[in-house]
Amino acid sequence: QGTRDHPPAQAALRDRLLSAVVSCFKRHGAAAIDTPVLELRETLIGKYGEGAKLIYELQDQGGELLALRYDLTVPFARYLAMNKVTNMKRYHVAKVYRRDNPATTRGRYREFYQCDFDIAGQFDPMIPDAECLKIVHEILSDLQLGDFVIKVNDRRILNGVFAVCGVPESKFIPACSTVDKLDKVPWEEVRSEMVGEKGLSPEAADRIGEYVQLHGGLDLIERLLQDPKLSQNKLAKEGLGDMKLLFEYLTLFGITGKISFDLSLARGLDYYTGVIFEAVLLHQENEHMEELVGVGSVAGGGRYDGLVGMFDPKGRKVPCVGVSIGIERIFSILEQRLKASGEKLRTTETQVLVATPQKHLLPARLKLISELWDAGIKAEMLYKKDPKLLKQLQYCEDTGIPLAAIVGEQELADGVVKLRDVATREEVRM
Amino acid sequence: QGTRDHPPAQAALRDRLLSAVVSCFKRHGAAAIDTPVLELRETLIGKYGEGAKLIYELQDQGGELLALRYDLTVPFARYLAMNKVTNMKRYHVAKVYRRDNPATTRGRYREFYQCDFDIAGQFDPMIPDAECLKIVHEILSDLQLGDFVIKVNDRRILNGVFAVCGVPESKFIPACSTVDKLDKVPWEEVRSEMVGEKGLSPEAADRIGEYVQLHGGLDLIERLLQDPKLSQNKLAKEGLGDMKLLFEYLTLFGITGKISFDLSLARGLDYYTGVIFEAVLLHQENEHMEELVGVGSVAGGGRYDGLVGMFDPKGRKVPCVGVSIGIERIFSILEQRLKASGEKLRTTETQVLVATPQKHLLPARLKLISELWDAGIKAEMLYKKDPKLLKQLQYCEDTGIPLAAIVGEQELADGVVKLRDVATREEVRM
Repeated sequence: QGTRDHPPAQAALRDRLLSAVVSCFKRHGAAAIDTPVLELRETLIGKYGEGAKLIYELQDQGGELLALRYDLTVPFARYLAMNKVTNMKRYHVAKVYRRDNPATTRGRYREFYQCDFDIAGQFDPMIPDAECLKIVHEILSDLQLGDFVIKVNDRRILNGVFAVCGVPESKFIPACSTVDKLDKVPWEEVRSEMVGEKGLSPEAADRIGEYVQLHGGLDLIERLLQDPKLSQNKLAKEGLGDMKLLFEYLTLFGITGKISFDLSLARGLDYYTGVIFEAVLLHQENEHMEELVGVGSVAGGGRYDGLVGMFDPKGRKVPCVGVSIGIERIFSILEQRLKASGEKLRTTETQVLVATPQKHLLPARLKLISELWDAGIKAEMLYKKDPKLLKQLQYCEDTGIPLAAIVGEQELADGVVKLRDVATREEVRM
Repeated sequence: QGTRDHPPAQAALRDRLLSAVVSCFKRHGAAAIDTPVLELRETLIGKYGEGAKLIYELQDQGGELLALRYDLTVPFARYLAMNKVTNMKRYHVAKVYRRDNPATTRGRYREFYQCDFDIAGQFDPMIPDAECLKIVHEILSDLQLGDFVIKVNDRRILNGVFAVCGVPESKFIPACSTVDKLDKVPWEEVRSEMVGEKGLSPEAADRIGEYVQLHGGLDLIERLLQDPKLSQNKLAKEGLGDMKLLFEYLTLFGITGKISFDLSLARGLDYYTGVIFEAVLLHQENEHMEELVGVGSVAGGGRYDGLVGMFDPKGRKVPCVGVSIGIERIFSILEQRLKASGEKLRTTETQVLVATPQKHLLPARLKLISELWDAGIKAEMLYKKDPKLLKQLQYCEDTGIPLAAIVGEQELADGVVKLRDVATREEVRM
């Protein structure tokens, strides 16, 4: 339940998609790492907030208590701490596991790929953070997914907002996860959860509401920097100062047109400490005017400066910022688009079919195909002793093989091969 | 325990290795598929003989009872049956899981990659089987792993041997798994296990011993076809006839020099029904005359005509033959060899570092690098506001970046960039 096989057509599409993402990560100088699908349970505990209940645990069959990884960020932090790495730019494309009840029609699964790019190390503020946003912008543009917006916020600004609205610090995280729902439900519902479940005062909730419904650009940042209450809060002021710097860098990258400073963005995970962001595809229709699958967020990430320290015996921190591309949802869109276009993706790369027009020529086919393989040419033949020529050519048409290398009795006698262009039926002896 | 992280140098080496294997699979016209890491427990039960106790089970957290896949063959068979596919040539490169106590120094792990190529469908005898052996030959030759031999046998021949030696049919599978140990322990030990643990009569064991210690080529096949006892056994005769045909095809492929018909080869898994094979690297020393890691088998496979039928409600069979490349062991050898050679593998593909020689030029670097990224050029910069030029060039040398694009005050004023070849220190303005 919640998992799926990828038949060849889907696997080919996914390969194409993954390689577009990976080539962007490589363009930004990232190295690959790989970590096990299994992690110690204790590694994952306390990192995911409300997500914790979705962790898959392995049966205790003796030995260590294990779980399946929930994302690629916590394993990366564990890797950095274990190997005392303080400086690294890496990408990781792999499957993660969540014991969710996902809406598979919307491209959400219990087993799904994540494509992560992270920069670890102590650097000057907002330069790596800006690069992460540039990467999201490049990937979503390259894939031609239509119009999108990247929402940006900062946990320090949010916490500052909570503080000046009179929320006690112990309730910052629950308040945060409630604000995070603002993209799906109206403010009234969020407000009533804050007051009801989370126990905030109605006045605090109302004050929060005034802030978290704001969104804009540099102008909004400037306005909040002048805000009489917020500007008095140290955290908020730091966050807003960095946000301003971030917008300067994004202006140099020429991508502010797609960036929205959005105070309602909170992100569910506990480990973020600074900038957070999330890319959303905007409402769109395909050529047949059907509404496309509602996919929501297709990329997200942020800064997590405290996570690595949680795995270091001496608590040494390594500041990190990273982005995760939600490949499964993008895949759903591309799949739907491919279906609509009627285009058929080839699932193999075979260049030539080795064929024979008469009987008793299997040895000739085996010899020729062996020569082709040894020369690095992608070649197939039918696994029959005496297949009909028509069947062989039909196979080429069905699977998109462009050429047929035909050896008949005449060709064998003349020491040649007849090369046939399957589409045009042109033939040359060579 | 028994798993490992792959840091960038290892990940880069493994990527290189996997892409060599995948390009061979594609050369033979295979399509990719992907299946979940999780399978229903009932799917895996009864398919692996003595391996069953090594299956990782997931905790029962409600819902279906799950396990981690033990290989890629059973999921492939499950996939074929579920989707009623009767004809397919596919490859699958993915991790599998065995709760083993493996010797990690010999490249054996609890989580490891398998690279599988399989041909499913009803075809003329031994043509797909021969292709699987050709693939093993190509991959081991391409990777220049040194001398190797591919042992070939047939479950029907083995079962025929057991039958004519007086073993009851119920003991074929246990006898088989005992014979399989002949590559690691001497015949005397195998014999005593047969008589002791497996309950065969001493006479039967001795008769088996005479057969299973034989190995050779076409000559041995011919001799056994004349063997007064074996030739009377229907199964053995079929197996020997097909083995002869296989050798004919392998002769046309020009690879019989590396093939040994070896009656001791049994393979541990229950599901094989016909041809079985295993590639072994021959003893070798590296240039420093140290003995290389003892790796044993680096590829294996065989025919399993009954497995798909086990997953079909009506028991419809789909004959299959396939090969699995033991990538982890090959990886251990290549890693050791790389270490011995002192060669350093680049872990990134960055083509150019964007650098500045004076202070206050971060905006110029951000603008230039953004242009390079948008033009598809792999570019990095240091995440510092004002890095020293020497530090920037040092970073190029450390990470193998061949070029530095330098923008200083003069270049900005002239509207040019200074492109520096890091190794030769040559510079051009452009």
